[in-house]
Amino acid sequence: MGKNEREENGFDPENHNQEEEEEEEEKKKQLKEEEHSVERIFENQEVPSWRKQLTLRAFVVSFVLSILFSIIVMKLNLTTGIIPSLNVSAGLLGFFFVKTWTKLLQKSGLLRQPFTRQENTVIQTCVVASSGIAFSGGFGSYLFAMSERIAKQSTDTLNFKKLSLGWIIGFLFIVSFLGLFSVVPLRKIMIIDFKLTYPSGTATAHLINSFHTPQGAKLAKKQVRELGKFFTFSFLWGFFQWFYTAGENCGFASFPSLGLKAFDNEFYFDFSATYVGVGMICPYIINISVLLGGIISWGLMWPLIEDRKGDWYPADLGAGSFSGIQGYKVFIAIAMILGDGLYNFLKVLSRTLLGLFHQLRYKDVSSELPVAGHSSDVSSQLSYDDKRRTQLFLKDQIPIMFAVGVYVAIAAISMATLPHIFHQLKWYYILVIYIFAPTLAFCNAYGCGLTDWSLASTYGKLAIFTIGAWAGAAHGGVLAGLAACGVMMNIVSTASDLMQDFKTGYLTLASPRSMFVSQIIGTAMGCVISPCVFWLFYKAFNDLGQPGSQYPAPYAVVYRNMVLLAVKGFSSLPKNCLLLCYVFFGAAILINLIKDLVGKKWGRFIPLPMAMAIPFYIGSYFAIDMCVGSLILFVWEKINKAKADAFAPAVASGLICGDGIWTLPASILALAGVKPPICMKFLSRGNNAKVDAFLGP
Amino acid sequence: MGKNEREENGFDPENHNQEEEEEEEEKKKQLKEEEHSVERIFENQEVPSWRKQLTLRAFVVSFVLSILFSIIVMKLNLTTGIIPSLNVSAGLLGFFFVKTWTKLLQKSGLLRQPFTRQENTVIQTCVVASSGIAFSGGFGSYLFAMSERIAKQSTDTLNFKKLSLGWIIGFLFIVSFLGLFSVVPLRKIMIIDFKLTYPSGTATAHLINSFHTPQGAKLAKKQVRELGKFFTFSFLWGFFQWFYTAGENCGFASFPSLGLKAFDNEFYFDFSATYVGVGMICPYIINISVLLGGIISWGLMWPLIEDRKGDWYPADLGAGSFSGIQGYKVFIAIAMILGDGLYNFLKVLSRTLLGLFHQLRYKDVSSELPVAGHSSDVSSQLSYDDKRRTQLFLKDQIPIMFAVGVYVAIAAISMATLPHIFHQLKWYYILVIYIFAPTLAFCNAYGCGLTDWSLASTYGKLAIFTIGAWAGAAHGGVLAGLAACGVMMNIVSTASDLMQDFKTGYLTLASPRSMFVSQIIGTAMGCVISPCVFWLFYKAFNDLGQPGSQYPAPYAVVYRNMVLLAVKGFSSLPKNCLLLCYVFFGAAILINLIKDLVGKKWGRFIPLPMAMAIPFYIGSYFAIDMCVGSLILFVWEKINKAKADAFAPAVASGLICGDGIWTLPASILALAGVKPPICMKFLSRGNNAKVDAFLGP
Repeated sequence: MGKNEREENGFDPENHNQEEEEEEEEKKKQLKEEEHSVERIFENQEVPSWRKQLTLRAFVVSFVLSILFSIIVMKLNLTTGIIPSLNVSAGLLGFFFVKTWTKLLQKSGLLRQPFTRQENTVIQTCVVASSGIAFSGGFGSYLFAMSERIAKQSTDTLNFKKLSLGWIIGFLFIVSFLGLFSVVPLRKIMIIDFKLTYPSGTATAHLINSFHTPQGAKLAKKQVRELGKFFTFSFLWGFFQWFYTAGENCGFASFPSLGLKAFDNEFYFDFSATYVGVGMICPYIINISVLLGGIISWGLMWPLIEDRKGDWYPADLGAGSFSGIQGYKVFIAIAMILGDGLYNFLKVLSRTLLGLFHQLRYKDVSSELPVAGHSSDVSSQLSYDDKRRTQLFLKDQIPIMFAVGVYVAIAAISMATLPHIFHQLKWYYILVIYIFAPTLAFCNAYGCGLTDWSLASTYGKLAIFTIGAWAGAAHGGVLAGLAACGVMMNIVSTASDLMQDFKTGYLTLASPRSMFVSQIIGTAMGCVISPCVFWLFYKAFNDLGQPGSQYPAPYAVVYRNMVLLAVKGFSSLPKNCLLLCYVFFGAAILINLIKDLVGKKWGRFIPLPMAMAIPFYIGSYFAIDMCVGSLILFVWEKINKAKADAFAPAVASGLICGDGIWTLPASILALAGVKPPICMKFLSRGNNAKVDAFLGP
Repeated sequence: MGKNEREENGFDPENHNQEEEEEEEEKKKQLKEEEHSVERIFENQEVPSWRKQLTLRAFVVSFVLSILFSIIVMKLNLTTGIIPSLNVSAGLLGFFFVKTWTKLLQKSGLLRQPFTRQENTVIQTCVVASSGIAFSGGFGSYLFAMSERIAKQSTDTLNFKKLSLGWIIGFLFIVSFLGLFSVVPLRKIMIIDFKLTYPSGTATAHLINSFHTPQGAKLAKKQVRELGKFFTFSFLWGFFQWFYTAGENCGFASFPSLGLKAFDNEFYFDFSATYVGVGMICPYIINISVLLGGIISWGLMWPLIEDRKGDWYPADLGAGSFSGIQGYKVFIAIAMILGDGLYNFLKVLSRTLLGLFHQLRYKDVSSELPVAGHSSDVSSQLSYDDKRRTQLFLKDQIPIMFAVGVYVAIAAISMATLPHIFHQLKWYYILVIYIFAPTLAFCNAYGCGLTDWSLASTYGKLAIFTIGAWAGAAHGGVLAGLAACGVMMNIVSTASDLMQDFKTGYLTLASPRSMFVSQIIGTAMGCVISPCVFWLFYKAFNDLGQPGSQYPAPYAVVYRNMVLLAVKGFSSLPKNCLLLCYVFFGAAILINLIKDLVGKKWGRFIPLPMAMAIPFYIGSYFAIDMCVGSLILFVWEKINKAKADAFAPAVASGLICGDGIWTLPASILALAGVKPPICMKFLSRGNNAKVDAFLGP
């Protein structure tokens, strides 16, 4: 996907002073090139000025979609933390909304400006920026980890910060823009000089380009219809399920589809349309990894460890105590996540440095980059596409001094205000972070361009451990660490998002200036929308963050325990837990190493430790959902590969969006105190007889 | 369906002594005829002798299918009594089995005789005859109505006969063959002289003929695949549901999909694949009628009558007492069934007589028959098809004296043995029945030929009322009436089945002799298989016949109360019940009358009283299933009419057969004492809180 080889088979039409034979070849090449050229198709379409790309309707649509995607991302955050790429759905829905809008206007004769792909890119950028905050805002991780609810579940119940909408919005506004200004001066280097791939950004650009060709628009229409169908189904299904959830362990989400014993060990299909959709989007290996992780942990390890109750840990502990079985679950998961994170951090860092070294040494874009699947034979010749794109990309500039100035200004404001929000976060911690941040932001943006893998949460963990340990337990290291994590994550994650969008803009001839403005507006939207959406969940579902509930927010628990580890060390872990952690930390690194060493052919059958770690804490019910999604896709591909390829992402998006949007009315109902009327309960035969006798005839 | 107009546009190629112009026309007609001729396609295929049509493999396949369909019919008998036409599924599955068989043999080089459509007809006949016994054996009506279980629910708990496999099989053997011998001499008159339509028989013949053309075989293969898919799905779905039915009101069959209040009034979708399939086969108007009946009865009348508890009937009665609300439910249903039955009896009888009168008076087949949709312009000229068919139909004769002799012999045996089984059934009752039986059998066979409507159960009710009233309460009129109903129903129903099969045989060139033998073998199979299947249900499900259970056997209760009505009169009915019965009896007749008077255009929107009556007693959950089936079919037809027409019957058959076959392992599990492990229970929020408190953490 998106290994833009097309642009690399460059050709300069002005370079004619050569022999006849070569000229012949050249001509053939040219013809071939013409056939493949995307920009030739759009040649007759005028590219609007950057101001005209930023239309009001684009931002209205973006606002609506931002709310939609913030809800979805928030839901995913709080259930499992696995968030698939929602680019395709954002693209499809954005196209659908504006197309409907312009059609309606066209009919009423009020249409002044046609819908261009640049405008589409602006929407895409704005939505991605905005819903990105729902992830990087840490509502499922560091921010929620500060709350009293999560603190009560950990061994440190004193260090918490009462959540309130005010300071969350303020905090996000302070930290979310810094990333943008830290990398914006580097865009020419990354996009034009280095020609980084940015697979997601490239894919999105191809999608948007395809929408605006006549053939593509037809397909898009069909895809939108498919999306709509499954959106409706999924929404109604969520609505239907709601009626049967009058109490705990009620409804389809507690359906012991594999038997009661399996259910007790979290093996069941929970009928979640969202995760079936996620399973259809995620690669097979991720779904298999998650299931494998579930089997290893809940199927094998936890039952074995529970047998040692009374020996390894006291038998009289509550189910939620981190000195008991819960401790094993969380810390082993943390060990795997850290092992995987460390490995990939080092890998991406070394690639980044190596790549940079080559780029700078040869000062030639054609040099072979040490990037998997990125063997290029690019010469200094530029194709028509590249020329046109480069020309438009360089047209609208953003002054470097402006960027640097704003960066310094925001940094100063941060240093002045952040310690007021978090007393434990001293101004000099912030200064240190802000000195290193641009480098790390660059690293992340560069690495993401090579591998499509944003390591924002890994950089966040880095901040947790360094700042947490620096502050120490006595000086509120817990909150300082988590807050530092937030600052760091926001910077590096917005930086890589911005660069992805620049790549999309480059490929769709959208002006970098309009991209940048759209990103800023989107970020601002996100800073308001995401906290509000979170607040809705927080107020509506009182068991948010409780293990075993509908929204266990696994990463909040994991992050809290990570910072406790950083601050307090390993002292509080139960017996043999540290040993197991070392084993799994090592295993995570080893598996990754093997995966890289055996090559792509076999490597694709080796599971991903990061994906394996998630079910360790929350169980494998969502793994079963995802595998059901995989199975559906697999069967579909067997039956009709072309159709599956064209429509599976739309179907999956429909499932995810419909179920996601249902949580909006669901939480409003919960806030209004409307409770479902029926409980669909699952009782063993023995208990059922008891209950029947109890309830009487 | 099956209005064999093709055969009626007759043309005699020998009649050439006419003017030139007419000859031209004739030629055109001939060409057209040739195009439409079915037998021209099969011209080169030799028709095997009647002995060769009766192959061993045909009867082995018939035996397997007979068991399958007996189970399905028994299940339908015992759940609602609504039995759709299973001819298409029998045809498809018969074709599939023998085709697989012959293919396997062909591969191994052992095939001696190819699979012909005559053999296919033999299988069809045998299966229909055998599974017909599952209906006419009265396991869901008169026979079960004699049992202690049903007697306990009625106001007369003393007159019952202990069920045992022995006498049931004996009884069926005595009464089931009489019908065959009573009408077999009339086959030439009905099929060739009267050219009766027999829509089901004709449709089956068309199906079988189509299977044996190359194009048809291809379609059949696809249909079989579709059937297999939904068979598997439906079977697995039944299996899955089983796990959650650990107690009463557990599982999907008790899913309050429209809320708990609607559930209490029997309005819910019970996830039964069988009735969704039935809904897909039955015409829309039947499904709508059933739903309408459910709404009128359970939605309006019963709640209103229950409000008068203590006034109209004593408030302290058990829920099952026929002096209470249950009485209204059953007797009003009986009133509608009798009203509808009476109307149709008179209608069909008058048509039969009128038809006969015309036939005999004009001695000319071309006379216009007073049959709806049966306007024919048949002359004495015979088409190629007709000639060939008539020739083969008349080739193999069955001597009249043989038929009469066997009839008298069986009648004598019956009179000698039946009173030993039912002491209350005196020999002279039997003699009277057997004197009238051939006439009634002929009436039914003739009426069925015109309207496709077998009135077997109406003739049975006639016997109940006449013999029951004749014997009287003091002399065991209850059992005498029910037994007489059994004798009568078996005779008339097998007679019409046989004639349908003769029509099928006529159209597929199967010999009447092989048809007759097949029918006899099938009947004999049915006399053993059906009682055994019933016995399996009877032993496996202890709540068989209980209202509100999985198998309420509504008609058993209805028949028992009918005979009580005949024997004891109206004395035991609760207040105002008789009035309501009169109203509904009249309404049933009136609705039918209006339906016939307004013509086909509007008549098809008027509901059928017979179909409306069934939910009166058992509730409308199956009506909702059937309407779901209708809805699926409706949407499918909107999307792709051609595909829906080709595959809907196969899909429906798959759903019905899969779920039906699942009852076999289900009842074996029940017999073996294996109980499902989980109860999926539906509790109101209040009850759920109580139960949670009761079960503790």
